[in-house]
Amino acid sequence: MAAKGFRCSAVGAGIKVRKDALDLGMLLSDLPATAAAMFTTNRVQAAPVRLDRELVATGRKLRGVVVNAGNANACTGVKGTRDAAAMVALAAACTGSPKDTFLVASTGIIGRPMPMAKVTAGIKDAAGRLGRSKEHAQGFERAIMTTDLAPKSAAVEFLIGGRKVRLGGSCKGSGMIAPNMATMLAFLTTDCAISAPLLRKALREVVGTTFNCVTVDGDCSTNDSVLLLANGAAGNRPIRSAGSAYNAFRAALLHVSEELAKAIARDGEGATRFVEVRVIGARREADALRVARSIASSPLVKCAINGGDPNWGRIICAAGYSGAEVKPSKLQLRINGVLLFKGGMPTRVAPEKLHACMKPKEILIHLDLAQGNRRGRIWTCDFSREYVNINADYHT
Amino acid sequence: MAAKGFRCSAVGAGIKVRKDALDLGMLLSDLPATAAAMFTTNRVQAAPVRLDRELVATGRKLRGVVVNAGNANACTGVKGTRDAAAMVALAAACTGSPKDTFLVASTGIIGRPMPMAKVTAGIKDAAGRLGRSKEHAQGFERAIMTTDLAPKSAAVEFLIGGRKVRLGGSCKGSGMIAPNMATMLAFLTTDCAISAPLLRKALREVVGTTFNCVTVDGDCSTNDSVLLLANGAAGNRPIRSAGSAYNAFRAALLHVSEELAKAIARDGEGATRFVEVRVIGARREADALRVARSIASSPLVKCAINGGDPNWGRIICAAGYSGAEVKPSKLQLRINGVLLFKGGMPTRVAPEKLHACMKPKEILIHLDLAQGNRRGRIWTCDFSREYVNINADYHT
Repeated sequence: MAAKGFRCSAVGAGIKVRKDALDLGMLLSDLPATAAAMFTTNRVQAAPVRLDRELVATGRKLRGVVVNAGNANACTGVKGTRDAAAMVALAAACTGSPKDTFLVASTGIIGRPMPMAKVTAGIKDAAGRLGRSKEHAQGFERAIMTTDLAPKSAAVEFLIGGRKVRLGGSCKGSGMIAPNMATMLAFLTTDCAISAPLLRKALREVVGTTFNCVTVDGDCSTNDSVLLLANGAAGNRPIRSAGSAYNAFRAALLHVSEELAKAIARDGEGATRFVEVRVIGARREADALRVARSIASSPLVKCAINGGDPNWGRIICAAGYSGAEVKPSKLQLRINGVLLFKGGMPTRVAPEKLHACMKPKEILIHLDLAQGNRRGRIWTCDFSREYVNINADYHT
Repeated sequence: MAAKGFRCSAVGAGIKVRKDALDLGMLLSDLPATAAAMFTTNRVQAAPVRLDRELVATGRKLRGVVVNAGNANACTGVKGTRDAAAMVALAAACTGSPKDTFLVASTGIIGRPMPMAKVTAGIKDAAGRLGRSKEHAQGFERAIMTTDLAPKSAAVEFLIGGRKVRLGGSCKGSGMIAPNMATMLAFLTTDCAISAPLLRKALREVVGTTFNCVTVDGDCSTNDSVLLLANGAAGNRPIRSAGSAYNAFRAALLHVSEELAKAIARDGEGATRFVEVRVIGARREADALRVARSIASSPLVKCAINGGDPNWGRIICAAGYSGAEVKPSKLQLRINGVLLFKGGMPTRVAPEKLHACMKPKEILIHLDLAQGNRRGRIWTCDFSREYVNINADYHT
């Protein structure tokens, strides 16, 4: 945890199939913290999501988060609701925090009852292991992983009124990632003092252009949550209105969220390449995003990228069926800077140059609609045989 | 060709990479035929699509269709427009038909100029080989294939006023298949005498619940076309108003279109299983279709089906993010008749029964929203390693 006044821990509670894996994490603020959160837009919402939504809506100051991997506590009926509440109550009790001051997040298999004996023991264990070291943070990052190959974290320091302020976070992603909060859990902490309305405003603004701009497979999950706690331990003059201090905070939040969101795309299930789809020249931002999403979600485009094939035809085609106003004769398409399509036709590019543009591990698909000055950007990854392997063999 | 008064032919013109493959087909009606057509909704439309749209809009009686595989004549600029027109003119001239009485369809690689020397020779050759035999029809079915593994055709006979009437068709599909006219070409012929307005009405109604209800990968192409010619050779009293004769015609068209649409899903790229997603109990048909499409388009669901995994969690999840009004606690999900989810939770099903329901090559996903009495249905296939192989290695 980069931010002052936060501790965390991780334990292996035996929830994941792999017995020795870390699968339960805890995050605690020394001081009561202002909270903001955003959740999945899926109509089917896991029990922890429903509970957190209520807790955050009370406006109460919160103390921490308890999170488990291995079981999503989704589609688990009344027992699931009770289990989520029990996790909140127990985490608060074990850390000496007031009632209902913990948030809870779960990720993993859908439709299995939470193994509450293991979870209970795990929470008690985790509460006794809280700490501030780098190892503690790394343990937490690992405990929230499911099919992620790498832990994901980011942090930044900035000044507010001469005071050093910190903001950091970690997240998990991998499968079932799509715009509008995919199976993604992100935990953000800051020691900035900031009012609840501004904290929420900043989170809402930032999530729209970061976490919501990632797509791995278009599947938006039941459990997605971005949780942000601000405990004021930096001692800055509290931010209570929009202005330069708020802007500095928002910029820091944007930076960390962007890093985390990109890390999710980079570590998409089976991914071999990171892809940014940038659409410019749109009449409205919504059109730019619609085109970018259509390209980033096309299995044909993603397979072509996997094969290192500069298949501009599939990209132009996906732009065409996006539903946005697109004039084929105006489109200009570049991949990693090489102009491939203009005036309704492919350009003449030497074959070596054509294939070289697809070689890097980071692919920038840049499409100019030439109709206005709005833009949008989506991050994704390629589609590999490995993605199918992972998802055909994942056991229900 | 099942319908009377139609002839067809197929030749290998050398347009496809495989030199010995059939790749140019021709279809000719002995009598001037009433035409109806529907095309891709993609904003990027191939030259043949733009030309056919104009030709059909004139209301002129038509004589035939010329079609090639191996080159889509899409994103080919002014030359592409000229080439499509040249194909129409040449096909008419070579068959002694009046000017502008042929439609043209192309499928294959996007953005390459049409090899017009080969195409010209192919059209001349095809015009000299027209015939009515089963072998002629089978040749035509093969000439329109791209990555299709099997030719696709269907036919039906029915009575109108005591007269035997025939309606048949063939189509190609495979990759880039999605609702709203995917890369799919379908050619339908009938010897029914029917007015142009009713022919168009029937086609519009039928396409909405058949060809538009297929999805392989969500990619909607630049070239999709369904062309229908009615030459009246059956000698029935012409259908000029809605009524029992119209209903008989519409039922025949529905049957043939449904068979062809299912054949496309069954032969989707890399498909190992045919899937019907049926959603009932919706308040509006659009909601039912939206939920069905969301499930049928989910890569996670499709990978699970490939792996024979009854992963109801992914199905419920895809219903949840469809954007339609869905109440998790009301949902009832059956796979091949086995009730898997009810009351917001999975049912208790014996493991053998659970896994047995995914064994058949035909999978019926049946979801009851329990909110009304509208329904919708989408056909698709599973998502395999082979799909990625085909589309990562397909050469631009």
